[in-house]
Order: sequence, then C-alpha cells, then structure tokens
Amino acid sequence: MRFFAHGNANPMDFTVTAPPLDLREAIAQRIDQKTKPLGALGRLEALAMQVALASQSLTPAIRAPQVRVFAADHGAAAAGVSAYPQEVTAQMVGNFLAGGAAINVFCRQFGLPLRVVDAGVATELPEHPLLVRARVAAGTNNYLQAPAMRSEELAQALESGQRMAHALADEEGCTLLILGEMGIGNTASASLLTACYTGLSLAQVTGRGTGLDDAGLARKLALLERALARGGVPQDPLHTLAEYGGLEIAMMTGAILGAAQRRMMVLVDGFIVTAAVLAAHALAPAVLPYCIFSHQSDEPGHQRQLEFLQARPLLHLGLRLGEGSGAALAYPLVCAAVGFLNEMASFQSAGVSEAV
Amino acid sequence: MRFFAHGNANPMDFTVTAPPLDLREAIAQRIDQKTKPLGALGRLEALAMQVALASQSLTPAIRAPQVRVFAADHGAAAAGVSAYPQEVTAQMVGNFLAGGAAINVFCRQFGLPLRVVDAGVATELPEHPLLVRARVAAGTNNYLQAPAMRSEELAQALESGQRMAHALADEEGCTLLILGEMGIGNTASASLLTACYTGLSLAQVTGRGTGLDDAGLARKLALLERALARGGVPQDPLHTLAEYGGLEIAMMTGAILGAAQRRMMVLVDGFIVTAAVLAAHALAPAVLPYCIFSHQSDEPGHQRQLEFLQARPLLHLGLRLGEGSGAALAYPLVCAAVGFLNEMASFQSAGVSEAV
Repeated sequence: MRFFAHGNANPMDFTVTAPPLDLREAIAQRIDQKTKPLGALGRLEALAMQVALASQSLTPAIRAPQVRVFAADHGAAAAGVSAYPQEVTAQMVGNFLAGGAAINVFCRQFGLPLRVVDAGVATELPEHPLLVRARVAAGTNNYLQAPAMRSEELAQALESGQRMAHALADEEGCTLLILGEMGIGNTASASLLTACYTGLSLAQVTGRGTGLDDAGLARKLALLERALARGGVPQDPLHTLAEYGGLEIAMMTGAILGAAQRRMMVLVDGFIVTAAVLAAHALAPAVLPYCIFSHQSDEPGHQRQLEFLQARPLLHLGLRLGEGSGAALAYPLVCAAVGFLNEMASFQSAGVSEAV
Repeated sequence: MRFFAHGNANPMDFTVTAPPLDLREAIAQRIDQKTKPLGALGRLEALAMQVALASQSLTPAIRAPQVRVFAADHGAAAAGVSAYPQEVTAQMVGNFLAGGAAINVFCRQFGLPLRVVDAGVATELPEHPLLVRARVAAGTNNYLQAPAMRSEELAQALESGQRMAHALADEEGCTLLILGEMGIGNTASASLLTACYTGLSLAQVTGRGTGLDDAGLARKLALLERALARGGVPQDPLHTLAEYGGLEIAMMTGAILGAAQRRMMVLVDGFIVTAAVLAAHALAPAVLPYCIFSHQSDEPGHQRQLEFLQARPLLHLGLRLGEGSGAALAYPLVCAAVGFLNEMASFQSAGVSEAV
C-alpha cells in the first residue's frame, strides 16, 4: 500500500515482505541437535525459529538493541478517559529522562539504551540528550468532536517512525527494536482502534487503563461509544488511525512497518503498542513474523488483540504499566533463545548419547 | 526436626524461621509510592514484597547469586524409567563443565556463576574447577528392590547440601541460590516423592520426563506403582526421601533448608527441584517464604506440586529441560523486582501528579 505524505509526490512505501521459509528445515534440525530432549526448551525454541527465519540466518544475532518510548498527548484526555490528569504525560517524560521510571530501571539492568520520542506531547519539552524531538503537534484533537489528526499529521507521524526504524537498521546495525509508550488517555485511543481493526465491540476491548473505578470505566466506555458514533468504523486502515489514533501510536505504526522492511525484530509491549501492531498489520499483514509479543497485559483488551493476531505472548505477569516495561522484561528471554541456538553444543560435538 | 547424621551425636538442625511480617506495611507503602499506577507491575510487586520480607529490608539486594546444578544417578534408571541411557548423566556433567549446555548459555548471558555438584554420579568424574565433589555414593539403589539410600547416605547428602548453602551465605555473602539438577531417571524419583508428600496418586504426578512415548510412560508408571507397593508411603519425610529419593534431590533438600536458615532466597527450577522443596517443606514448612518458583514445567506433575504448595510460578514457557534452565531464565525478573523497589522514583521525588 502506498500513501502520499505532506502533499509530496514521493509516496510512502509500506510494502513488507514476509521472511522466506526455505531455512525452516535447517533451523529445526539445528535446534533438535542441541544437547537437550526434543522440544525441551518449549517456547524458546519457537522464538529461536522465529528470529532465525526473520533474519534469514542459522546463526541470528541480537545486535545494537534499542528501546524507544513514544510519548504524546490525547485531546480526549480532558473529557475524562483516564484516572490521571493530562500533565502526567510530560511529567513522566521528565521522569524517563531523569532515569526514575520502571523502564529506566529495567533498561539499566539489561544494558538496553533508551530514548524517549516526543511524538506529540502537549507542552514544549526542554532539550535533553535522551529526548528525540519528532513532535507532530501539541497532542491530538478530541475525537469526541473531530478526527484525532489531519491526514498530513498522520503522514508525518508514520514517516517519522518509519525513518527512525530505517536509520536504526542502516546506521546503527540494530536488529531488535523494543517499543514502549506514554500518553495519558492512550488506552482509550487504543480501544477505539482495536474495535475498528478487529470488529470486536468497544465493551470487549475497553478496560480500566491506569486504574479507573467502576464508574470511571462506565464513563470511559460511554465516551468511546459516542466517539465511534461520530466517526464510524472507517474502511481504510489509515483513516481509522487518523480518526481515533494518537500521535505516539501512529509513529509506532510507522516504526513497526519500517523495522519489518529492514527485517528487524520488534519486541512489542502491551495494549497500546499492540494497537499500533494492529494498524501496521492492517496496512501490511507481513509485519507479524517480525513481531515478538512480550507479555499479556492485565488490560483486558490486550488478550483480545493477541487472539485476533493469533499471537502468543511470552510473559503473563499481570503488568499494566506501559512504557515498554513488559517488552524490556522479555528481552532476556529473546537473548536466551538466540543464545541457545548459537552457543549450545550438539549431541555429536559434546559426545552425549541420544534418546534410546 | 532433628536428625542424627553419621551416627554422630551432633543432630542436624532443620529449624527454619519464617520471616516476620512487621515490615509488610512499610514495604507496601514504598511500592505504592513508586511512579506507576497502583499494582501496575503485577507479579513483580508481589515478588518485591517477598524478597524484601525474606531479607527483612526495605532495600533488599541480590548479592553474589550462585547457580548450583546437582547431579546424581539413579539405580532405577536401568529398569527403563527414562528415554535416555544412564551414561548421559556423566556425559551431561561433562557438557556442563565444557560450557555447552543450555544452563551454561543462560548463565553466561545473565552473568551467573555456575558450579556442578557431584552428589552421586555412577562413574568417577575427573577433577575440574567447576566441579564440586560431594559424591555420597555411585548412585542410588534401585527402589524396585530396596530403599534408594541408607540413612547414613541420606544424612550425608542432606548435611552436604546444608553446609554448602551456609558457606555460600557466610563466606560469599550470597543472597540468592539458583538450583538445578541432572540425573537420568530423576523425574521418576520425583514422581514417587511427590506422590508421598502430596497424597496424590502416581498417575497424577508421573509424566514423560525427557520424552517417553505412550508405551514408555505406561511402563514407567507400572514400575513406580511396583516401587510404591514395595516401600509403601512412609509417615516420616526423611524415610520417604531415603526410600525413593535421589542423592541430588536429597542434597538439594539440605541446600534449601540451609538457605532458608540464612534467609537466602532460593530460585526453584522445575519438577525435580520442586520435589526437593516438597521434602524440605515436609521437614520445615517455613522454607516456603524463601522459595521463588521460577516457572511451571511441561512435566504435568509440576503443576500438581505447585498447587499443593500454593505457589505461583513466574514463567510459563513449556520448558522441561531441568539443569536449572527455567530458574536461570527467571533470574532477570527477580533482579527487575528488586531493582524497581530500590531504584524507581516516587511520585513525590519525581514531581509527578497522582491519580485524581
């Protein structure tokens, strides 16, 4: 699918090619010859197969992994779709830059470099070495009244994300992009997008976000029903993103597409990042083999998204924090999967007898 | 409970004290003031609470973590309870010492020091810097014919394990002991022990181990029924261990008791290590608050053990390898739990607004 950005004559290219499957047999054989009973590493074996196929290598490597947390504000936040005030988006960006959030802790522990991307935070943010300035607008419009973004804004967000992923691959040799997000009100946006992309009802995919009580959840759902009554269910995936998306979600959509175009793996966090995967998948279904689903969030809509995508998450820890925290926690498992494939001895090389 | 070892007049002391709960409120408050919605780190919050309580500190630390893989042979292996020949125990120990097994890969990736403990491998093993020589006997007796070990052998195994754990705490300042095992035939022994300690039937707790087919599973179950008919269900936990245990399982039981006595956390692997936890729990129920259950194995009896202990494992990855591989894979999560408790900013320190 092609999309014209900025009124520019150069169309954006969202073409993604699924990895060829020719190596499947050779990879399976390599896995089965390792010194372990057949299948004994369970999900790690499937993960090793996925990474090896995606990178078209019997000896895939995780090189220059990067965490990107995309932040933006949502016009609908003022309408009361979140338990927290909108200013918390910028405050939490400040917390990320100061190193005090959960994602910072996990990145430090696992040696992961982190950058925060301002995709559209409402307030102007000061310069900071860890901040990537890619602000498309001072947040989205309130989708209760109008489409969340203009098509030019959407195009800019998608293109920024795509370009970032390409640059990580081409300039830094990155083979694993770990995605996270921050944006007060963004579970609401993700619920609208999920309902549109999956055909599920809003009630099935709307949850408490950062911690709404029963009354808050009922209010949120009623607001989202009103938004959907206003904007309808667009036929076109980009139109859907423009109607209900967030700038961080749109930019992550571009990043997922760009990563898959470079055969880079994407480590997907929770409900909001998976909404971006749904958008990318609607534009180019072949992104899926490049996506590793890190965990199943406690936000109930996340399970529905994963079922729709027929994706099995690695972790079930009852997380509902966002920030890329669940994806970062799954990173050691990805390393372990690639590690056993590359480093374990075979029955033959170790001189170990096989099953009788 | 006290137990006389080696006919020595000094009784072994298995007394374990559960951590006092006085700090519970203060720890909960510390967790809830972190810059995240209440409860948003899910299972990691419960894990942080457990480690903080066990170490009686608001700022617990994982110091000098150690992986110990206990290896031993089983007299019943020759009777056909495993898909692999008995020589594989020693061969896999060689593979561990050469660095080629899954546990080696994971230990290297996560910076974990590994030692292999010869608790009772059938063949004499050559000296190696990574090998701890604590061989009680050249494997156990075949429990189809006689008790697996004499009470002196059991006492020696328990005492060795307990002493190792004490030394790790006292001499190396270790606060986290990661347990794994290797021993052809040891799922069979673990099934017998589990049936005795939990009251479940052998059919409920016997599985395919390293990969028996249907006929192999039926044969294994029939053999274990015969063993149980011979030895009965002993009333005393030590008697049970002597009848059906393995030397690696007995030594791990001692290590678990010793670790808990030093308020050291134990990161528990799969079915066989959990059988040792069942034995330690039968001797001293207060070991449980010191045990972190890393994963739920694909070996079906493991879920039964965990239910009996009311334990919730961290990972569900369909692993059934042993070696401590599942425990090593959960280690980064333990670090993450302790890390967020120690390093995350509070709402106040970061200047972030709380929920409205």
